[in-house]
Amino acid sequence: MYLNELPEREVQRKVNEYFQKADVILSDEEIQSIEVNDFGLNRLDEVGLQLFIYINTDRYCAKEWVLFPRQTCPEHLHPPVTDGDPGKEETFRVKFGTVYLYVEGEPTEHPKVQPPERDQEYFTAAHEIILTAGDQYTIPPNTRHWFQAGEAGAVTTEYSSPSTDEHDLFTHANI
Amino acid sequence: MYLNELPEREVQRKVNEYFQKADVILSDEEIQSIEVNDFGLNRLDEVGLQLFIYINTDRYCAKEWVLFPRQTCPEHLHPPVTDGDPGKEETFRVKFGTVYLYVEGEPTEHPKVQPPERDQEYFTAAHEIILTAGDQYTIPPNTRHWFQAGEAGAVTTEYSSPSTDEHDLFTHANI
Ligand SMILES: [Zn+2]
Ligand SMILES: [Zn+2]
Repeated sequence: MYLNELPEREVQRKVNEYFQKADVILSDEEIQSIEVNDFGLNRLDEVGLQLFIYINTDRYCAKEWVLFPRQTCPEHLHPPVTDGDPGKEETFRVKFGTVYLYVEGEPTEHPKVQPPERDQEYFTAAHEIILTAGDQYTIPPNTRHWFQAGEAGAVTTEYSSPSTDEHDLFTHANI
Repeated sequence: MYLNELPEREVQRKVNEYFQKADVILSDEEIQSIEVNDFGLNRLDEVGLQLFIYINTDRYCAKEWVLFPRQTCPEHLHPPVTDGDPGKEETFRVKFGTVYLYVEGEPTEHPKVQPPERDQEYFTAAHEIILTAGDQYTIPPNTRHWFQAGEAGAVTTEYSSPSTDEHDLFTHANI
């Protein structure tokens, strides 16, 4: 578990190397605000998501996120939070690398990637969407989804309605 | 008036050259959907805005726009449209070049750029904000603003609440 053992600053620096591949320009201060999220599983090499938040108001949100090679963002959904709110809607636009995205729907027969082996029971969405640089996909509110980067890692911009991470519902029993 | 005389396809191709400088990847189909807006003044070299819309739902919007060298986007504001809506809020994040942005507020004493000479009466916002690659600024709803690119042109991502361009109010009498 190599990434786990690095100080957060070091992981942020690595994330910024991916941002640079995609011509995403952050200030030193912004680099230090990159969020490194291991979802409490303490296995960052396998499970995690690193992100920089451009803006998150009560009206809209935009982020840039990095997955390290073969790293998985675990399955979750964004439920309705307030009356009349259908839940967070998010649009991914990949800037670098490949993202294997799985959403609810018709299961894909021969998926290109698998969730981390010991967590398989916590991954149910199986409709595959493969996104490479320049590809875009919008995930409807209240819909289970998870994603994994290919061998090169991935940089993706996420446009969305406001982010209220504390309301996200994860399938994993330990998240 | 060089740009005015080009077919739209040709202008779109030029816009895409700027996008490429900023590592913005569009498909051929997307390039053909780039909007070239001369605001009805028919002086695209001086006044205009070219943009690609990533997504515009009833919840959020994201665009990538290009200003050609010294081109000006004329002064406008985004008023409240529906009950309880304060008007469109927009966040600019510059990816390439320099944007000279002017918003309502304390006038800047020696502004770096001027509006096109014959339109000066239609430009009132005079508080200067200079944005270069990596810089970001959020324009509050219902606030007059205009902007001009530097010598190299500019590429900027705009994150915002939904876009309803037909409701924008321009200061210019002929827009
Ligand atoms: Zn999500
Ligand atoms: Zn505006």
